[in-house]
Amino acid sequence: MSMINKLSFGIRKFHTTASRLRKYVELTSVRYPLLKRGNFSFLSDRHLGFFQSILSAHQVLTDELNDLSGYNVDWMRSVRGSSRLVLRPKTTEEVAAILQYCNVQNIAICPQGGNTGLVGGSVPVFDEVVLSLELMDEVISVDELSGVAIVQAGCVLEKLETVLHLSNLALPLDLGAKGSCQIGGNVATNAGGIRLLRYGNLHGSVLGLTAVLANGQIMDCLNTNKKDNTGYDLKQLFIGSEGTLGIVTQVALQCQPKPSSVQVGFFGLNSFENVLETMRLSKRNLGEILSSCELIDQSSLECVTTQLELRSPINNFPFYMLLETAGSNASHDAEKLNSLLEILVNNGTIVDGTLAVDSAQAKNLWELRERISEALACEGYVYKYDVSVPIRQFYQLVEDMRIRLGNLPIRCCGYGHLGDGNLHLNITSQEYNPILLNRIEPFVYDWVCQERGSVSAEHGLGLKKRDYMEYSKSPTVIHWMRRVKKLFDPNNILNPYKIFPEQSSTD
Amino acid sequence: MSMINKLSFGIRKFHTTASRLRKYVELTSVRYPLLKRGNFSFLSDRHLGFFQSILSAHQVLTDELNDLSGYNVDWMRSVRGSSRLVLRPKTTEEVAAILQYCNVQNIAICPQGGNTGLVGGSVPVFDEVVLSLELMDEVISVDELSGVAIVQAGCVLEKLETVLHLSNLALPLDLGAKGSCQIGGNVATNAGGIRLLRYGNLHGSVLGLTAVLANGQIMDCLNTNKKDNTGYDLKQLFIGSEGTLGIVTQVALQCQPKPSSVQVGFFGLNSFENVLETMRLSKRNLGEILSSCELIDQSSLECVTTQLELRSPINNFPFYMLLETAGSNASHDAEKLNSLLEILVNNGTIVDGTLAVDSAQAKNLWELRERISEALACEGYVYKYDVSVPIRQFYQLVEDMRIRLGNLPIRCCGYGHLGDGNLHLNITSQEYNPILLNRIEPFVYDWVCQERGSVSAEHGLGLKKRDYMEYSKSPTVIHWMRRVKKLFDPNNILNPYKIFPEQSSTD
Repeated sequence: MSMINKLSFGIRKFHTTASRLRKYVELTSVRYPLLKRGNFSFLSDRHLGFFQSILSAHQVLTDELNDLSGYNVDWMRSVRGSSRLVLRPKTTEEVAAILQYCNVQNIAICPQGGNTGLVGGSVPVFDEVVLSLELMDEVISVDELSGVAIVQAGCVLEKLETVLHLSNLALPLDLGAKGSCQIGGNVATNAGGIRLLRYGNLHGSVLGLTAVLANGQIMDCLNTNKKDNTGYDLKQLFIGSEGTLGIVTQVALQCQPKPSSVQVGFFGLNSFENVLETMRLSKRNLGEILSSCELIDQSSLECVTTQLELRSPINNFPFYMLLETAGSNASHDAEKLNSLLEILVNNGTIVDGTLAVDSAQAKNLWELRERISEALACEGYVYKYDVSVPIRQFYQLVEDMRIRLGNLPIRCCGYGHLGDGNLHLNITSQEYNPILLNRIEPFVYDWVCQERGSVSAEHGLGLKKRDYMEYSKSPTVIHWMRRVKKLFDPNNILNPYKIFPEQSSTD
Repeated sequence: MSMINKLSFGIRKFHTTASRLRKYVELTSVRYPLLKRGNFSFLSDRHLGFFQSILSAHQVLTDELNDLSGYNVDWMRSVRGSSRLVLRPKTTEEVAAILQYCNVQNIAICPQGGNTGLVGGSVPVFDEVVLSLELMDEVISVDELSGVAIVQAGCVLEKLETVLHLSNLALPLDLGAKGSCQIGGNVATNAGGIRLLRYGNLHGSVLGLTAVLANGQIMDCLNTNKKDNTGYDLKQLFIGSEGTLGIVTQVALQCQPKPSSVQVGFFGLNSFENVLETMRLSKRNLGEILSSCELIDQSSLECVTTQLELRSPINNFPFYMLLETAGSNASHDAEKLNSLLEILVNNGTIVDGTLAVDSAQAKNLWELRERISEALACEGYVYKYDVSVPIRQFYQLVEDMRIRLGNLPIRCCGYGHLGDGNLHLNITSQEYNPILLNRIEPFVYDWVCQERGSVSAEHGLGLKKRDYMEYSKSPTVIHWMRRVKKLFDPNNILNPYKIFPEQSSTD
């Protein structure tokens, strides 16, 4: 394995790019002039008085300049609402009291978790009241034997992870935003991430949850049993419904034994055929210990290394793959990975690469993958596409798009969760450019639709992708989604303007 | 490891117990006199004429004596309906045409898969028309690289397994009834089984499905992408709804790489504390290769060995455990299992046991677990309880029940999916005895409710457990289940009398 060089990274300080992003953000209502405010009540002193009567002072934020701006803008700074009120309940009962009142008073609500979404789903479009879960951040219980954790919705994912590690447990999900995103938001958006390959999605891992309905009713589906077939599994409706059917306040999660051995490798490949072959053999040879199988193309790596000054152990390959294993026996895991690499290197599938020798190096390698999104944002405006495509066509979309766009964008690149068939196609330009956008869309959706892919694999629809639902869902299915929405939230107060296309809202 | 003796089983012919069971089965309407037939149409010649006009002759069965009896009785011979018509569509479109007509004509339908259920969910209660999926048994496609199989609902699980093995893939579920049960029925009932510990439940493994709604509309949710967040995941509603919201006609399933190494061990233990310790250390030491962790108590083993003349390698222990590993490297897997057993034998947790040396022996060991249900049926009437309970209280319910029942039953025993917290409590008597039943119920449900368990872990509610839904679900949740049912099936033609308690049907 002499070709796989051990790599030593220097200590590197985490650079936040937030400071570079303090540019003006256009109001969503200006950028999307066709959007019409719903017939909701405007916030009055009487409304405010009610909220102040049931919550403490620090739970009711009204200072637009100092308090509200962060809640009105997404972290990509691509959408901006004009809410005048943020409510920060601490209990399920407080959420229930707020929603019951809003439902009667016809006040629109925008639920907000860590606000790390990428489709404008967690910020107000107009003046919706923001309901932030951030004060509900308690880990209620962790049971090592059963692996079940019960946690309030506002708990930050990384905090939960830290607590679980103390009980030798691991989260069934992990994502780049874990330092900010909240478990309730993860559940509400059915967040995917880098462990989905191994542990499946949240429809399988969430054992139970508590949700508050639009009318203030509390749906206690906080089951902690691994198996429960006593009627419809209604909790599933709230997973991935992006806060439009109810507000998730508590979650019971099936956690996994913490792996005692983790290996991370980073490899350079000369063709997409080699990428596919590496994935195929990884699945076969690493079997049950394969925990991540990620792809990074040359352009993505170039962006993350230059914009964020990260160092890559290898360079000048059209494709890079990051493989991770997680298992219970370090020597077994090393043997499996080494024998895989022997095959791949000997037959020329992998040209060069490196294995992390410790967790610090592993973290550095992961940053090359996880901070691409942040790096792209440094280039200006990012047109983000998060699609599922058949694995054999995984990279074709990037190539077709490059030909189509020519010199218009700064960059057109692809990376993502190869092992799950989930491509992140990203295109950047110095600023928002409607001409470029019209070259990209609806072409990208047509392309995905034709391959029977998904136009939103893990990001959801939110505001920005809502008009493209029909590319992945049939009219009958959309019709029934609307009927379910109408059943649970007849006044449409929960996260309006999100998920459903506007044009057929009379349906 | 000298205490773990290798065992050699003689060749044994599979004895079907069906012949012993050809006793008279009381009509459900007689056994449950409080049940009232719904206000549905009675089958007329005009109805029959319609069905005969859209289906071939062999798809329409009306001969009550020769054709219908098997469809009217469950395999436990515990419930019997009096349907006069069985329809056997071959396509989704035929199912749609049937349902559209039935909805307009107010004809009740009982969907039926392999009819292997244990709660009377898949046979008619009165004269519902049986809609059998058995002719829709095609495996439509299997993709080795992505692991996705698309299959018609009526495909028998074992047939699908055989096809998948050809592509080096394995099913994410496995159960004793796999020779008869159908994948559509598995999905409709959210079947659990012996691999759930490893691969999770069907809410995670089913990527997509096609379902026909009560009004005949076809819900095309046949997604084959591993990730798809484009609106509500409506397919989830049909998983576990026991045919009351729609009829599943096609399924897209995420399959797993076929393990190249499988190990099965069978162990005797002297206390439940030792059982728990074995489970805890198995989860830690076997980690990602642990695929089953099953418990069998002394009484269950005695029943299966005497009634079915099976031979057990070890005897006279209060508890037995069956552990299975499935992995990609035989020597690694053996090393993990051996080092676990060394710990457990050396510290006296496991007293005796055996490891299967080949797949025939493994099969024989599995039969000691999987055929308990069949063996119990030989004793007469079986009161079956399939509950989830907190793992530390897993066996307490059996002990409490034995004290409560004294000499009334032939047997009171417990076995099940220990690793998933899922206990099968079974009580037998020579024939159905209402006095015994009243000693068992509602005591068993109260007990489970108090421990916040589930009164039906994997069997569903069907007819026999429907009155106990409230022990595991809150009134608000049940209210919303009814609203969902009303939305999708306003005339209640799909599998009436099932899941929902009758008494509050005015809700």
